[in-house]
Amino acid sequence: MSITPGATLRELRERKPLVHQITNYVVMNETANATLAIGALPVMAHAPQEVEEMVGLASALVINIGTLSDPWIEAMLLAGRAASERGIPVVLDPVGAGATKYRTETAHRLLHELNVTVLRGNQGEVATLVGTEAEVRGVESMATGLEPAALARGAARQLGVVASVTGPIDHVSDGERVIDIANGHPLLAAVTGTGCISTAITGCFLAVKPDDPLAAAAEALIAYEVAAEDAAAGADGPGTFHARLYDALAALDPDTLDGRAKISWA
Amino acid sequence: MSITPGATLRELRERKPLVHQITNYVVMNETANATLAIGALPVMAHAPQEVEEMVGLASALVINIGTLSDPWIEAMLLAGRAASERGIPVVLDPVGAGATKYRTETAHRLLHELNVTVLRGNQGEVATLVGTEAEVRGVESMATGLEPAALARGAARQLGVVASVTGPIDHVSDGERVIDIANGHPLLAAVTGTGCISTAITGCFLAVKPDDPLAAAAEALIAYEVAAEDAAAGADGPGTFHARLYDALAALDPDTLDGRAKISWA
Amino acid sequence: MSITPGATLRELRERKPLVHQITNYVVMNETANATLAIGALPVMAHAPQEVEEMVGLASALVINIGTLSDPWIEAMLLAGRAASERGIPVVLDPVGAGATKYRTETAHRLLHELNVTVLRGNQGEVATLVGTEAEVRGVESMATGLEPAALARGAARQLGVVASVTGPIDHVSDGERVIDIANGHPLLAAVTGTGCISTAITGCFLAVKPDDPLAAAAEALIAYEVAAEDAAAGADGPGTFHARLYDALAALDPDTLDGRAKISWA
Repeated sequence: MSITPGATLRELRERKPLVHQITNYVVMNETANATLAIGALPVMAHAPQEVEEMVGLASALVINIGTLSDPWIEAMLLAGRAASERGIPVVLDPVGAGATKYRTETAHRLLHELNVTVLRGNQGEVATLVGTEAEVRGVESMATGLEPAALARGAARQLGVVASVTGPIDHVSDGERVIDIANGHPLLAAVTGTGCISTAITGCFLAVKPDDPLAAAAEALIAYEVAAEDAAAGADGPGTFHARLYDALAALDPDTLDGRAKISWA
Repeated sequence: MSITPGATLRELRERKPLVHQITNYVVMNETANATLAIGALPVMAHAPQEVEEMVGLASALVINIGTLSDPWIEAMLLAGRAASERGIPVVLDPVGAGATKYRTETAHRLLHELNVTVLRGNQGEVATLVGTEAEVRGVESMATGLEPAALARGAARQLGVVASVTGPIDHVSDGERVIDIANGHPLLAAVTGTGCISTAITGCFLAVKPDDPLAAAAEALIAYEVAAEDAAAGADGPGTFHARLYDALAALDPDTLDGRAKISWA
Repeated sequence: MSITPGATLRELRERKPLVHQITNYVVMNETANATLAIGALPVMAHAPQEVEEMVGLASALVINIGTLSDPWIEAMLLAGRAASERGIPVVLDPVGAGATKYRTETAHRLLHELNVTVLRGNQGEVATLVGTEAEVRGVESMATGLEPAALARGAARQLGVVASVTGPIDHVSDGERVIDIANGHPLLAAVTGTGCISTAITGCFLAVKPDDPLAAAAEALIAYEVAAEDAAAGADGPGTFHARLYDALAALDPDTLDGRAKISWA
């Protein structure tokens, strides 16, 4: 297989796929804007009356449990089942799994009842979901007992997903191969929702490359984190970095993207 | 009648009308900030226990169905009826009408049960509501079978509203006259919620010009889109454009605004 | 007692306390980003199934009634009681108290049933809660019949809290002493949620100084408003000011902060 973020980005911009997002209140504006900036179309809808119809119009479904409540879980299950029936890929962001029982159990339930294509989380969240000791403070990963590449591979095998475990170095695995990605910038950790945005961008890439979720997940992180590198150049702090991040996503050049990827295979 | 956005803006800033908004989760912060930046006061409230009291304090009500659910529809109906009883103008943004049955039916129900003053939508949404074939992808208008000025005039007649149909050229009609507005900038399409913001600004202008909703709706779009032109000058992409949009709204000069309007009568 | 915002900020950044926020839809992203920028960790959670567990992980709880509904009140009560049982300080922002009966009664109920440490509001909201005539338009304070330092002292005594009453000059009181703070910038009033952000920052300072809530509340306002002064320098309006506010919060220098405080004791 080959990792070609530039070619996938070019196709994404030509096809402008609709990406249905059932996400948290904190980041809805931000993930919608990132989706537009990379070149796809976002739609947010969570009513049980419409999620099945809406996901049927979409090319990918993003589920994010960041501000969870029971009616939203119902919507996630309805939309997720409809997506699977129609062969639409699903990305799950288990925000805060490990922090509370409610989040951990909901993430497990979504993984169990739905056909999740890509699980995108931080190390603490993913470690929690494979039953490893982990420290999660609120929605921040503090520490896990596992080497992160092994964690990604193990999670992929155990949960039957592509595991996209982000951090200073990201590790994306289908259970066999592990791709390490060293792009990005420390300012990403200074802005809320940047993990959620990476999940939304993963949905965008998966929408145009549904048959190769390992490559799509890795390419999404490369594109997003190269944009973060561009946004950080000239930013004066987290606020101007945040505004410039959308500029940088929109300005990403498919022709130079592959050459900027810092990847290795573990 | 005369279109005098500068005079209306001056009056808006003197009176600082309260504009009650029942809108979607994605854009609440953005429409509140745009409302403040143009010179009015926003208030967001959706509990059935308070919407009737809150709208009684306001000079206009903005209803936006972008992230709909049944409890919110109930709040929209309660607030909308209270507004009509008190002669408070109502702006409806039928976000995503045409994408799902739930949105289309809700928009019809609100138009039927409430006394909507201005309907502000894109071509696909408005075409859907007059029963014309339209393609709506998520919340984006893709194509309609109608010439847009005719669509605005027909919608105004059929639905008994002022129809404010936005796009590269906007068409605002009371069923007789049609005003075309050619202000704006392509970057508006690169930021989520810019349509919703135009609806909120329409509410602000309607609050100070309730007796002439055709002029108020047209003047709101002129003011907003002139600000977008200013924001785009010097922006590096959608993120910095978005931040600069609030600067530009706040900096709009009533003395020069009329001269910058690109309007024609169809 | 001594007001030492620099030392408290330094400790905050070392300890990175988790601050649980049950707040309104309009400002969630903004208060989370401000919390991160000052150096703490935000977590937003409102489900009754998890709020007690989540607040148990946190060092402070922020409750904000800006977009209220009954299920959220239930969550506020559950989280607030759990916080009090564990000795975790609680900050309440009674957004819009005085505008509707529902908001006024809810603020009273939270004050009555919970052990609120700091009440952070504008003059109209706080005057409403001590039973003084006040004009509140939506969420804006228009006028009160009381001299503001007396209002802060009286509210602290009557409600059994530290009262942090913000405005062009802020007045923070424990019922005995009143601290006046003259930092800040008029652009704060041009951006929505800047009051809510001051409440969140109050929660951050309280998390590291729970035993001295008067000092913590005053220091939080000093730090936030000094950052606002820095953000305003070079801003072109409310939009760029808003982005720069997070830069300025992150760039606050503990070594020079005390010297920039404009405080006096009333």
